Amino acid sequence: MSLAERDKKHLWHPLTQHKTHPDHLPMVRAKGALLFDEHDKSYIDGIASWYTCMYGHSNPEITERVKAQLDVLDQVVFSGFTHPPAVELSEKLIGILPGSMEKIFFSDNGSTAVDVAIKMSLQYFFNKNEKRNRIIALDNAFHGDTFGAMSVSGLSVYNGPFEEHLLRVDRIAVPEAGNIESVKARFQSLLDSGEIAAFIYEPLVQGAAAMHMFESEYLEELLSMARSHGVLTIADEVMTGFGKTGKMFASEYMNCQPDIICLSKSLTAGIAPMALTCCTRAVFEGFFDEQIVKGFFHGHTYSANPLACTAAIAGIDLLQSKGIQDGILRINRRHSEFEAHIAAHPKVNSTRVLGVIFALDLKTKTDRYGALRDKLYHFFMENGVFLRPLGNTIYILPPFVISDAELDKIYEVIERSLELV
Amino acid sequence: MSLAERDKKHLWHPLTQHKTHPDHLPMVRAKGALLFDEHDKSYIDGIASWYTCMYGHSNPEITERVKAQLDVLDQVVFSGFTHPPAVELSEKLIGILPGSMEKIFFSDNGSTAVDVAIKMSLQYFFNKNEKRNRIIALDNAFHGDTFGAMSVSGLSVYNGPFEEHLLRVDRIAVPEAGNIESVKARFQSLLDSGEIAAFIYEPLVQGAAAMHMFESEYLEELLSMARSHGVLTIADEVMTGFGKTGKMFASEYMNCQPDIICLSKSLTAGIAPMALTCCTRAVFEGFFDEQIVKGFFHGHTYSANPLACTAAIAGIDLLQSKGIQDGILRINRRHSEFEAHIAAHPKVNSTRVLGVIFALDLKTKTDRYGALRDKLYHFFMENGVFLRPLGNTIYILPPFVISDAELDKIYEVIERSLELV
Repeated sequence: MSLAERDKKHLWHPLTQHKTHPDHLPMVRAKGALLFDEHDKSYIDGIASWYTCMYGHSNPEITERVKAQLDVLDQVVFSGFTHPPAVELSEKLIGILPGSMEKIFFSDNGSTAVDVAIKMSLQYFFNKNEKRNRIIALDNAFHGDTFGAMSVSGLSVYNGPFEEHLLRVDRIAVPEAGNIESVKARFQSLLDSGEIAAFIYEPLVQGAAAMHMFESEYLEELLSMARSHGVLTIADEVMTGFGKTGKMFASEYMNCQPDIICLSKSLTAGIAPMALTCCTRAVFEGFFDEQIVKGFFHGHTYSANPLACTAAIAGIDLLQSKGIQDGILRINRRHSEFEAHIAAHPKVNSTRVLGVIFALDLKTKTDRYGALRDKLYHFFMENGVFLRPLGNTIYILPPFVISDAELDKIYEVIERSLELV
Repeated sequence: MSLAERDKKHLWHPLTQHKTHPDHLPMVRAKGALLFDEHDKSYIDGIASWYTCMYGHSNPEITERVKAQLDVLDQVVFSGFTHPPAVELSEKLIGILPGSMEKIFFSDNGSTAVDVAIKMSLQYFFNKNEKRNRIIALDNAFHGDTFGAMSVSGLSVYNGPFEEHLLRVDRIAVPEAGNIESVKARFQSLLDSGEIAAFIYEPLVQGAAAMHMFESEYLEELLSMARSHGVLTIADEVMTGFGKTGKMFASEYMNCQPDIICLSKSLTAGIAPMALTCCTRAVFEGFFDEQIVKGFFHGHTYSANPLACTAAIAGIDLLQSKGIQDGILRINRRHSEFEAHIAAHPKVNSTRVLGVIFALDLKTKTDRYGALRDKLYHFFMENGVFLRPLGNTIYILPPFVISDAELDKIYEVIERSLELV
């Protein structure tokens, strides 16, 4: 039986309607920016396996350090104990995080990092005997799939079965030039309720919302307003973090810094799941008390797994290297050149570039999981390029180590794909 | 600056009130059943680092396979793609899972495995246009820390800040000889409401509730009742799974099998976070439809991470080996001998053993995080044994590879600790 047939027997894939989905394609190895299937056909990993393998697949500068750690300390309880990789990672991270981030709390994925951020915000005010129980989120946000993270995500048809189980969240439009006054008015009225604990947002790029980009200046106005009302601000940098927007973190495009930052995905360079909820000293001090019960009693078994910490340390070392920083600049320049070339194409509605993220909206409308989306996907794959269009948006978010020739191939295949539209 | 001092600067530990907690002890390496601190003092890992490293720390039969996988395929998107470690793991797991488990859905920790199980249950009935929106859970249960998992956990003082954000859950007492009739009556009245989607439980051992053990026969009556009302049953085997109770899964102590099983912790043998929500064909078929929206749109980025899958495959191979199976029998026999010896001690209120789990309740009362608990903890550590008493319960859940001499030392230190009580 083939791998694809064996896959179908017992595996339930994420985000998949198995009845209408074709067989799952087995990938058997990966190296650098390339994935290889069973027949050794290669595919350029144009989205770095969901923005994780940003330093390339199986990069020896990462894997060799993880292998060494495997022989030293695999796992240990992180309550009562600590270990060198967690300590070293915390120091490196605090060194690059924006604003006055001072404390790091571990979990295992972006969803739990957001659940933790929400719980931190709610308990922060609970501990102060201040009744603040509501959260503000942006329309069309995506923050994850656990109940807390689903609640602050934009309502979608996929949340339908769970709607009555979600937390109470107030939504505002993404602030932009055309709506900033009305958004501010609504935001102000929510703040005036005195019941808002936190405002959560994806800074500058809403990834799942088809890489929707928005300007920092209007978001920054909201952050300042939140701050002046004592509302905690939560930047979900799970997708935007670690260099992808051209700065270490998207929050650096603003002066007003968040109180809490959520990180995951490329944090561990594609090696293992790990997530962080980072916060300021002020947030941490809201839990620092003689009363045990004011502590934060949240904990996942593999918190601060030493192998994942080791991968994260190696990733940050690479991110700070000249080679990777040059790669980010080079990809950004190449994206901009391609944008200038393709923007006027009759099938293209709009384009945008930030850091290593390129996105292009087609003029046609299509469903998020519609037929055109599938046609484009299969065209890319036939031509050896792995991209996952989101509705009528085609986007690229390649590993920082992608070569110019590989980028050229992606651009060329995208341009040819427009004939299908 | 020492590691412990560096730790204090930026790390926020799980389940910890930092103001009253002493410094976190750095563990720098581990091997087999032993943890080593900075000064090379060894500690027997009497709880296998929260029941993860059941085959011993850095076991080469696991680490060598993970190292090889690191060079082949680190990570790939699990929507649209599959890979050999996921396929192989699914086949091995289905081979050992009880009942008619047929499908496996991946996430990253026990909490998300439970959130997934809850979402599966709710959407299962939603897809059938049946309004079933309530869940039954056991008193004093612990299922995790995300909002869904918190909701089905027993209410504790630590959930206080989040109470009004939790899902609607009906609680019943743990069924035992003394209360079975009243528990059944309440369970029946809940089932009669027609609104119950699922019943979630930790089979036979409630880990966080101080290793509370209960008999299978009464639980089985509830499972049969649930089944006859079409209510889905969810066995949370995150702690009990993979041999710890003396059978592969605690559910095997019963004839009536669950519809959904949650797994994590020792699944990956202490290498990396991963969790599974396994289910029957009937549950899966509730999502299998021409309509995309009836699919299960939940997905974590690192779902089915190839390294974690490889560790899990190696773990199952070891679990099925004669060496490990003999170890389980040996530890169980040694625990029973120690139980017979210590049960009559004047400071001991009760004892219990199941598989490799030993627990002893002291006659005194103490808080879960109280002074006596801390005194015992430090006494154990001073004597080179790592155990984490839960309130007035001392328990052992050692790696399957622990030696007789190491077990003797744990027993001896526990017996001496009783003088402190």
